Amino acid sequence: MAKTSPELAREPTGGENGRRVPATALLGFATEAFRACGLPPADAAIVAGAVVEADLAGSDAHGVFRLTQYVRSLREGRVNARPNLKVIKGGPSTAIVDGDNGMGHLVMSFAADTAVEMARETGVAWVGSRRSNHAGAAGVYAAIPVAHGMIGIYGAASSANHMAPWGGAEPLIGTNPIAFAIPAGAEAPVVLDIATSVASFGTIRDHALQGKPLPPGWVIDRAGEPIADARRASEGTLLPIGGYKGSGLALVIGLLAGVVNGAAFGRDVRDFGTDSTREANTGQFVIALDVARFLPLATFTADVDRHVRDLRASARLPGFDAIRIPGEERRRRKQDRTANGVELTAALLKQLDALAVTLNLQPLRERTS
Amino acid sequence: MAKTSPELAREPTGGENGRRVPATALLGFATEAFRACGLPPADAAIVAGAVVEADLAGSDAHGVFRLTQYVRSLREGRVNARPNLKVIKGGPSTAIVDGDNGMGHLVMSFAADTAVEMARETGVAWVGSRRSNHAGAAGVYAAIPVAHGMIGIYGAASSANHMAPWGGAEPLIGTNPIAFAIPAGAEAPVVLDIATSVASFGTIRDHALQGKPLPPGWVIDRAGEPIADARRASEGTLLPIGGYKGSGLALVIGLLAGVVNGAAFGRDVRDFGTDSTREANTGQFVIALDVARFLPLATFTADVDRHVRDLRASARLPGFDAIRIPGEERRRRKQDRTANGVELTAALLKQLDALAVTLNLQPLRERTS
Repeated sequence: MAKTSPELAREPTGGENGRRVPATALLGFATEAFRACGLPPADAAIVAGAVVEADLAGSDAHGVFRLTQYVRSLREGRVNARPNLKVIKGGPSTAIVDGDNGMGHLVMSFAADTAVEMARETGVAWVGSRRSNHAGAAGVYAAIPVAHGMIGIYGAASSANHMAPWGGAEPLIGTNPIAFAIPAGAEAPVVLDIATSVASFGTIRDHALQGKPLPPGWVIDRAGEPIADARRASEGTLLPIGGYKGSGLALVIGLLAGVVNGAAFGRDVRDFGTDSTREANTGQFVIALDVARFLPLATFTADVDRHVRDLRASARLPGFDAIRIPGEERRRRKQDRTANGVELTAALLKQLDALAVTLNLQPLRERTS
Repeated sequence: MAKTSPELAREPTGGENGRRVPATALLGFATEAFRACGLPPADAAIVAGAVVEADLAGSDAHGVFRLTQYVRSLREGRVNARPNLKVIKGGPSTAIVDGDNGMGHLVMSFAADTAVEMARETGVAWVGSRRSNHAGAAGVYAAIPVAHGMIGIYGAASSANHMAPWGGAEPLIGTNPIAFAIPAGAEAPVVLDIATSVASFGTIRDHALQGKPLPPGWVIDRAGEPIADARRASEGTLLPIGGYKGSGLALVIGLLAGVVNGAAFGRDVRDFGTDSTREANTGQFVIALDVARFLPLATFTADVDRHVRDLRASARLPGFDAIRIPGEERRRRKQDRTANGVELTAALLKQLDALAVTLNLQPLRERTS
């Protein structure tokens, strides 16, 4: 039984030349990068906020790690820098946001806000998206309703397919993530943000960037044999959690986030890396559930606190130094990184320096705040 | 990589003395059993229908396999045979059904019907339950909205705790199941019904009844060592799918189904087997999502069919004879068992014979339809 989760193992070390960058510097840099790509100032701030939020919360593979890729998509015109978002309201509690091929971060921040507004009226709302794009860390959008005393659930049909159906060898399903965020009282909100694969593709890209081998059980080739070289991951398929169970979860999340919204799924998903001739038409959904429609919010959050404390104080297995509730490390990391900066690896810093040159921005190393 | 799923491996063989029992005979027997326990005729038919539906669909560990246990709970007064179900409507799209400690099958059939009615008005509805009880197979309730052109999602905070939080040794979380049911056209509806543990407790009980050893990775003791004897499973904890991911899923499903509804979770869960002094206060939820609020139902079901066929026809891994989409086997089994009967093991037939004596019912073997 593994003692630590991949999530915890991913804590960045930076290496000899890695260093901590102030969160405000990172936010400023990302905002300017998006403005340089043509995003209106307000939109650039929203997108940069969602990107840096992933870094603060510990979803390192979904933060500024992706900035170069996002900038390339915008500059090549594959993603629309100035989209006209449209809400298609299907009913009092349902809507689709047509993202006009804009940044997924913008589309899903707006979709989550819309879900909160609608749930305020009816108790629960389900807001999907079509013509969206990769939106980074699922937990960022699931957490938006929490600030309003609501529970958030987020799912996405990934913008690239890296998993096979159970028993299959062809990548026709995404590592479709799902995230839940549940308000607590004094304790950290319970936030679970998981890919339905054993390792997310972001984590695998991170391994490729750092030259680290992949453990067995993460990626297999078409003959079912493990692939250890992270740079070769795209030749194979990522394995789901729990065998047919995780594979089934990826499938149903893909149908809910993709097909229900008229967005891409299965063979309709274009390869993000290689096919630049048409838009991704990524689909996602956010559910907002208003806790106060079920019981007083304070009663609920006090109960969540009590249960979290019971679980944390319960007997441990040998070899575990603590029982960590999902969301607890997230809050700790966010506090630490907001105060002390986000540690970036030497490889990533180099990538961002190159980006600063391309976009004619003040490089990160010259920014103190 | 395992070639077959536990679900498929569970196909009953019956052994030398097992035999197929007509579905109508099983339904008649179960209905009479519940009437003999004091359920009003209409309620007995609903509960028996949900129990036998689990057998037909292949959730063998949640069908008549549990009948003896249900009857005992009713006869001992731990479950209310004549509950007065109450709907507490929190908003246009949310409600809690207070089950008055009735059979979970009755409560959740009613909750699913209520969710469908409410979703018809607003597009989506989230209906929870409190003071409910074990309701059997999750997929049965997720599938109810499908007959109305809707997507169904069901989750439960199990009525007994068999999992530990990640890193823990104490069973404080249920193997909380989640199920999704998605309408298709000519293809079978996509139905995924999974416990968040590697093996459901029902499957483990089935192993105990048949004297089959548990494979490693299913149950561990407090020292983290595997337990192979299924009869000793309650001494240990069941392992989650995907390590911390499945453990996190069980936790959030438990909070959504339990705490949101004012139902039991964590240390508040009484042990179903040993504590008979108070009601279980089990909580569940059903979400109904009206597809037609997003796109025309016929467009959606045609698209689901197309994707299902793409996946099924895609390249296979060595050793797999087919790619099976969740719900496909379920439909095949249901057709076969409805036509040819449900195969019950000799051990289960013996148990049901004893039940017939206790309740003074015509035994199964004397029923031809």
